[in-house]
Amino acid sequence: MPADTELSSPPPSAGTQRWALMLAYNGKGFHGWQKQKQADGLVTVQEVLEYALGQIAGERIHTVVAGRTDAGVHAAAQVVHFDTTADRPAQAWVRGVNTHLPKEVAVWHAQPVDPRFHARFDAFGRRYRYVLLSASVRNPLLAGRVGWVCRPLNMEKMRQAAAMLVGEHDFSSFRAAECQAKSPVKTLYSASLSGTPELMKLDLHGNAFLHHMVRNIMGALVYVGDGRLSVPGFADLMAARSRKHAPPTLMPDGLYLTGVDYPPEWGVATPPVPEWLW
Amino acid sequence: MPADTELSSPPPSAGTQRWALMLAYNGKGFHGWQKQKQADGLVTVQEVLEYALGQIAGERIHTVVAGRTDAGVHAAAQVVHFDTTADRPAQAWVRGVNTHLPKEVAVWHAQPVDPRFHARFDAFGRRYRYVLLSASVRNPLLAGRVGWVCRPLNMEKMRQAAAMLVGEHDFSSFRAAECQAKSPVKTLYSASLSGTPELMKLDLHGNAFLHHMVRNIMGALVYVGDGRLSVPGFADLMAARSRKHAPPTLMPDGLYLTGVDYPPEWGVATPPVPEWLW
Repeated sequence: MPADTELSSPPPSAGTQRWALMLAYNGKGFHGWQKQKQADGLVTVQEVLEYALGQIAGERIHTVVAGRTDAGVHAAAQVVHFDTTADRPAQAWVRGVNTHLPKEVAVWHAQPVDPRFHARFDAFGRRYRYVLLSASVRNPLLAGRVGWVCRPLNMEKMRQAAAMLVGEHDFSSFRAAECQAKSPVKTLYSASLSGTPELMKLDLHGNAFLHHMVRNIMGALVYVGDGRLSVPGFADLMAARSRKHAPPTLMPDGLYLTGVDYPPEWGVATPPVPEWLW
Repeated sequence: MPADTELSSPPPSAGTQRWALMLAYNGKGFHGWQKQKQADGLVTVQEVLEYALGQIAGERIHTVVAGRTDAGVHAAAQVVHFDTTADRPAQAWVRGVNTHLPKEVAVWHAQPVDPRFHARFDAFGRRYRYVLLSASVRNPLLAGRVGWVCRPLNMEKMRQAAAMLVGEHDFSSFRAAECQAKSPVKTLYSASLSGTPELMKLDLHGNAFLHHMVRNIMGALVYVGDGRLSVPGFADLMAARSRKHAPPTLMPDGLYLTGVDYPPEWGVATPPVPEWLW
């Protein structure tokens, strides 16, 4: 991890309140979650959210996020926390903040939380969904919202390969070169493939994810689905713990953060995302 | 109808071929289907399609469309025909044309047709879907793709009202002031409401539609759903044949052209749109 203000973020002082927010965003037009140090003119979700929160708080707000998403990646259920001396009802942090957000971002829940709650460090699980269109022609009604491959896919073989991902593994074969995680060993609680061969949904639930891990996994599953990689070949790829012979990273368009898990004592729970969203 | 080159469009001369295309588009960024006479800088779907066709044909192409859609309205299955002296295989009019189209528009089928086939005048049925989100907070992942109301809706009452629409009726109560149709009497073959109270889908199948008819019908159904209009009140509204007391037009974002019907002898049929598109 880089030097990070989040690591040293102290609990709030007396007279301040810590809030947890749940929000959704379409990542297509954003340069990812995180504020950029260089003034490169690219807007991030964090910037527009902190601007909107500041309008309601009347003071500068710093947010800490559960899962930093890359450029083009969406969130259906992202969680952040922030501290403020402003005394506002929960609805002000939802409807009030939304009036200051672009239509690609919306807060859908706000709740006061214990000052020791930390959106990132207390999360013991994250859920991601990758939605993949397999069609000979691109689909303009799904553009920016799904990954796209033009070959037909064998969903049953992809399912067999996906099942191998469950458990504690060294996921180096699906790790981006620039990944800064301390360890490539992560635990996947579940990996399931639903939908149809034309529009498939891969749901991964794990304790943490490496940089590009879901997009790299889906990239390898596509190779299994179109026959360029066998199911045993997928097992070999995982065992190789190297990106050297791994299929390429799939586009961010199909990736959604769909939930974050916290110990129940914090009272912060992201409800299941309704299936009609896709 | 305005003075219209389509009305006088002659069958093609010898050495030309008539083609039918099926295409989909996200209408959000377009000023509707039809080319604008005034140079107001607003791009239409017809303009970008005719530009792309011209790139493949090497000559200027004029298209005739089955259903002219308004600004912000989408199409999953729109049909056009055009004539060309260029001799190209069907794939050139699909993949070739798509390389010259923005990602919001794509041709997904092309076929040579009888020179007497007319995309607009031979259509005896059109299918439209309106997708409506009912949620207290707007949804950024559905922005531009659904209509949105923030009140909860009674789907059963809406279904009762929708059933009254089926058959031949004077639809003046759902007709925009600027509508240029010769008669307000149209026939709806079916009207059905599916999905959930949170994300509802209204499917209308009729011989023809008045300007804003689907959006006005959905606007009135929303009043039935949130209790501002009773089911008998909806019947009275239809019978009044006037927009005077009718609920307002709903936003275009939720409206999709989903199919066009032709007599089977033309061999031009739009297949059912897969449900996973929504």
